[in-house]
Order: sequence, then structure tokens, then C-alpha cells
Amino acid sequence: MDWRDQVRKVVPYVPGEQPQGTGFIKLNTNENPYPPSPAVEKALAAVDADRFRLYPDPEAGVLIGALSERFGLPKDRFFVGAGSDDVLGMAFLTFFNGSLPVLFPDVTYSFYDVWADLFRIPYEQVPLDEHYEIQAAGYDRPCGGIVIANPNAPTGLAKSLSFIREMVENHPDVVVIVDEAYVDFGGESAVGLIETYDNLLVVQTFSKSRAMAGMRIGYAIGNPELIAAMQAVKYSYNSYTMNLPAQIAGAASLKDEAYFKEQVDRVVATRERAKAALAELGFQVLDSKTNFLFCTHPEVDAETIFAALRTKKIIVRHFSGERVKAFLRISIGTDEQMDTLFAALKEIIGDGR
Amino acid sequence: MDWRDQVRKVVPYVPGEQPQGTGFIKLNTNENPYPPSPAVEKALAAVDADRFRLYPDPEAGVLIGALSERFGLPKDRFFVGAGSDDVLGMAFLTFFNGSLPVLFPDVTYSFYDVWADLFRIPYEQVPLDEHYEIQAAGYDRPCGGIVIANPNAPTGLAKSLSFIREMVENHPDVVVIVDEAYVDFGGESAVGLIETYDNLLVVQTFSKSRAMAGMRIGYAIGNPELIAAMQAVKYSYNSYTMNLPAQIAGAASLKDEAYFKEQVDRVVATRERAKAALAELGFQVLDSKTNFLFCTHPEVDAETIFAALRTKKIIVRHFSGERVKAFLRISIGTDEQMDTLFAALKEIIGDGR
Repeated sequence: MDWRDQVRKVVPYVPGEQPQGTGFIKLNTNENPYPPSPAVEKALAAVDADRFRLYPDPEAGVLIGALSERFGLPKDRFFVGAGSDDVLGMAFLTFFNGSLPVLFPDVTYSFYDVWADLFRIPYEQVPLDEHYEIQAAGYDRPCGGIVIANPNAPTGLAKSLSFIREMVENHPDVVVIVDEAYVDFGGESAVGLIETYDNLLVVQTFSKSRAMAGMRIGYAIGNPELIAAMQAVKYSYNSYTMNLPAQIAGAASLKDEAYFKEQVDRVVATRERAKAALAELGFQVLDSKTNFLFCTHPEVDAETIFAALRTKKIIVRHFSGERVKAFLRISIGTDEQMDTLFAALKEIIGDGR
Repeated sequence: MDWRDQVRKVVPYVPGEQPQGTGFIKLNTNENPYPPSPAVEKALAAVDADRFRLYPDPEAGVLIGALSERFGLPKDRFFVGAGSDDVLGMAFLTFFNGSLPVLFPDVTYSFYDVWADLFRIPYEQVPLDEHYEIQAAGYDRPCGGIVIANPNAPTGLAKSLSFIREMVENHPDVVVIVDEAYVDFGGESAVGLIETYDNLLVVQTFSKSRAMAGMRIGYAIGNPELIAAMQAVKYSYNSYTMNLPAQIAGAASLKDEAYFKEQVDRVVATRERAKAALAELGFQVLDSKTNFLFCTHPEVDAETIFAALRTKKIIVRHFSGERVKAFLRISIGTDEQMDTLFAALKEIIGDGR
């Protein structure tokens, strides 16, 4: 026997590049181009460094309290973690322990199948239709659970609340996870349904609309029984997943809703402008409700464009999967960054034609 | 079918109380009584808040670089996580996937059996001897892995390096994890052995000796193959476990070794003084190489003392397990805090006798 025989074999998720140098225009990981609320910096500066010697509140009371206030829901509806990846991963581990396959789209956040593989959860990927839309029909069968990113990534397309309601009502016997990482940019949130359906878990993040990817804050909203089940699993893994700065920064962000709305509106306005500009360059652009655009050019290969942009220090995202390899996923930057992108694309497309 | 049938059933670890009010003398979770290095506060204050909008470096390069320098070992020997709980939990998930039981002491860090249960890992607890010492003989059999806390908790007793070498050499076919959460307070570290043995993983933390429990920083040291296996599992769960403040604060702490040594020496001096003071009050105190004392009083019940101290706003730790319920675990505070404790104990013991 060899210790290597016992090692868990996995094929990890590959995160987008995080270049450590400067001078890049970074449109590859759907970060917000604007900084978080000034209230965040202020709250962090006010922390007495002596508090770092103590364990943080395992219940993250300050952060949960601020979420409770923001959503007008009792505290026991919230679970927090180190980014929505931590929250989703823990939800998979908590709720998907049956023998029937968990269902999610074939084109969606590419961490879902990675978590399923990691935790040995059976799953099946339901194909999007030819317009890259999620189809209800494919989910109309017995399963171990359902995971829907809404809006979906990397397509950017959103489903209506009636679709989510249909999923949850048709599958009262399993947990339906709705991953709303991008919802603030134009989707319809299912948070209003959690008091009606005890099998619905909604997951959101501070990484996109709240411009706090560097802080790692995600949360789930659901009925107290779902949340308690996740808490038990969390307390069986790591009592203190949220460090003190994350708890304080997260709470501060939630208390500055005016700033939040303003930044989100700016990103949405730039997105709509970018959609038109890309169309003008000949791109086909899906109708995004997120802070990124998923687009393909009928004449110039996506990988060629990706590489050409990279030499100009503009980083976008390209996925190699069969159904998406013709596309680029472009995060929405500042107006200035997008103008630089359009100029670069004009050159590249012109050369490539 | 009900979604509840699929929920993972667990019995979580119960962390020590983290009172949110003031006025407590908190000697229950082995935190450092002194603040982290001033370099930590300075480094955090220098961070441009605009960086929070970006994902942190998934490789935690700044922190790994500082660890590499501190230990004089190449960077590929290090794995970092959100506290040593995150690191240990991930090590369990990565390395313990066989059918033979993983072995660890019956009295040890009470998270080991929780992780094993969470991940459905078979395990057996090997009894400490009558002096609460770890005995090599109990581990002399085929197994799925070995986990030794050295120094052990909550006993505080340390094993020699030759014992660790024996474990690692007798079990080349499985991974041996040495949990050195408390090693800086007087234990012998096994880090020097990792270049010799490819099945040895050493885990340490910033929560105790570096006074940074609130930041959640732990790390593992091992050969590159072990580290790569853990990285693959980590990247299959959460690409970014360490937020930006944790990476920066951790690196800053590692660069101020003079402060670190000074604070550790102070804690050790107080521990030795406390050991004598407790003995004078009639306690039997195990020979601690940590920042806590494990002690029992022949005349007054531990739970009685625990409760009496709690009414005086002094919080220590009491475990309910059969072999440890006669003991209290008392973290080392400042000299002043300890003097208050001794005075309180004198009253309680006097009353109880």
C-alpha cells in the first residue's frame, strides 16, 4: 500500500487569472470596477488591533444582524461563509446525500460539477436549449436536488421567478439551490419565496455587486431548518470561517445602500452601452442581466481574440467547453476601460476579417 | 421522500464561549493575552481599500513567501487555510480515503472525530495511558492514517521527536499528521523531518503564539506531493479561502520575529508561575508545553469550580468527556489576569473544602 492510493482524486476548478503586476485591464473574473463603500474602509480603520488576538464571533452576529436588517428577515434565515463558493460547497455537502442525481445545466457555473465530484455526489447536467436558455422540461423528473444559477453564468441570461417557483413546487422532496451571485445587476431574486417554500435555498455574494471579492463574503437565505442543517455541517468543519475584518467590512457595506445602488446602476449603464458597442463590431451578444457579457463573433475565433487581447494586457475569460468555446465572457469595467477594449477589439476584428 | 432524509447528519464540535460583552477574563480558548505585532496593524492600515474589489491571490503568494523565508524551506512545502481547522479538515478529506481506521488518541483535540464523522472516515481512538501520555504501542498496527497533536490538547503534554519519527517510519504507507498548534510554547517541532519523510504533514497556526485567532490563518508543511494533493482538493472547494487582510496580516507577523519571541517567552514565564500557584492551591497540574494548563483538584469538583469562576466573570474550559471531566483547562492570560484567577480560586477552593 502507498499513501497515494488513499488521496482523493479530483479535477479542480480553474479560477480566472489574478495577475499580480499592474497595467492590466482585468475583465476576466466579474469583479466590480468600483471600490466598495467608503464606509468599509472607515469601519476597518476603527478596529482595535488587539481584537485580532481573540477568535472572531463564530456566529458572525454583526454581519448576520446587518443582513437581517437589509432583507427584513429574522436572523435565523441567514448562513454566512468565506465567499459564495464556501456557502455553495457547504450546501452541496449538507443537502445532497442521496442516490438520485442532482440536476443543473450543462452550461453554468463550472464549480457545481467540481463540488459534486469532490463529495461523490451523483449528478446530471441538463442541456440548455439552442438559445442557451434553461429549459424547465429537462428538470421534470425525480432527482437528488436542483441547482440553478439565476442569472446563469457564463451566459448572463436570467429566468423569471415563475420558473424558480415551478422548480421548487415540482420538487418539494429535494433542496433547490438558486445561486444569485449576479442578481443585483438585473435579475429577479427568489428571496421573497423562502418563507413559502421550505426547500428553497438562495445564495448571494459580496464579491460582485458589493465590490468585495477580496474579503470573501457569501451568504445563504432559507428557512430556519435549512440554515440549521448547514450550520451543523459548518460547525463540524470550521467553527470560525469568517475572520474579524470580513465580518466588520460586510456589515459596513450593508449599511450604505445608497452607494451600493449607485455603483450597481453605473455598471448596468456601462453594460448596456457595451452591448451596443460589441454588436456594432459584429458580435452576437446574449441578453445579460449580470455584470458581464457573453458574446461570440461570427468571423473571428474567440480564442484568437482572447490571445490578441492578452498581448494588449486586456484579460477576458475564455472557456474551453464544447458549447461555449466560441464565446468570450467579458466583465464590465469602467467606461474608460471598456473604451480601451472596444478600440482593441476593433483592431483585432479588423485584422482577423 | 423528504429533503430532510438527505441531510448530512453530524454532531458538531462545540467551540469555547466567545462572550461579546466586556469585563470578562477569558481563559477558555487558548488565545494569546498579548496583541499581535504592531507590524500587523501597520500593514493592514497601508492596504488601499480599492484592492478589496478584486479577488485575493488564490495562491496567497505574499503569505506563502513569508512562511518560506521564516522556515527556510521552498514555497511548495506550504499550504495555507482559514485557521488550522480549515487546514486539518482539508487534510482529512484529502488523505483519509481508505477503509482502515485512522488512529488518534482518545483524549485529544475534539475536532478530529468530528471531521472523521463529517467525511465518513473510519477511525479508532487509542487510549492515553494512566498518566495521560500518548503510548506508541497502541499505534503499532495497520491503519488508514495517524493524527497526533504535539503538544497534545487538552492535556498540554508533549512527545519527543523520536516518537514522531517512530510513527512516521512505522507507517510509510499512510499520512501522519502532526498538529503543532501549541508547539511554539515549548514543544519540539517535526518540521525538520518533512524533507526526510514524504508521508509527514505538520500543521501549525497563527491563532495561539502569533496572537491572531481573529484573522484565521493556519498552514501545513510537507513534501511537495502532499501539498499538491491538498491544493487540488482546496481548488475543488473554494479557490480563495484566504481573504486579503489575512494574507497581508499573516505576512507582516512573520517578519517581526523579535516581537513574536518576546511574547511567547512572556506567556511561558507566566505559565510556569501559574503552575506553581495552582499546585500551592492543591491542584494537580500536568506538565504543559502549551499556553494552557490542564489541572484537577482532589477535593473540589471541576464543574463546581468552572461554574463558580463563571459567576466571577472568569471563563475557563471544562470538557464533559469521561476521562477529562475532573479537569479544567485554563489558558494562560496576563500576569494580572492570572493573579485575579488565583485569588478567585483561593476563595472557591476554600469554600469547597
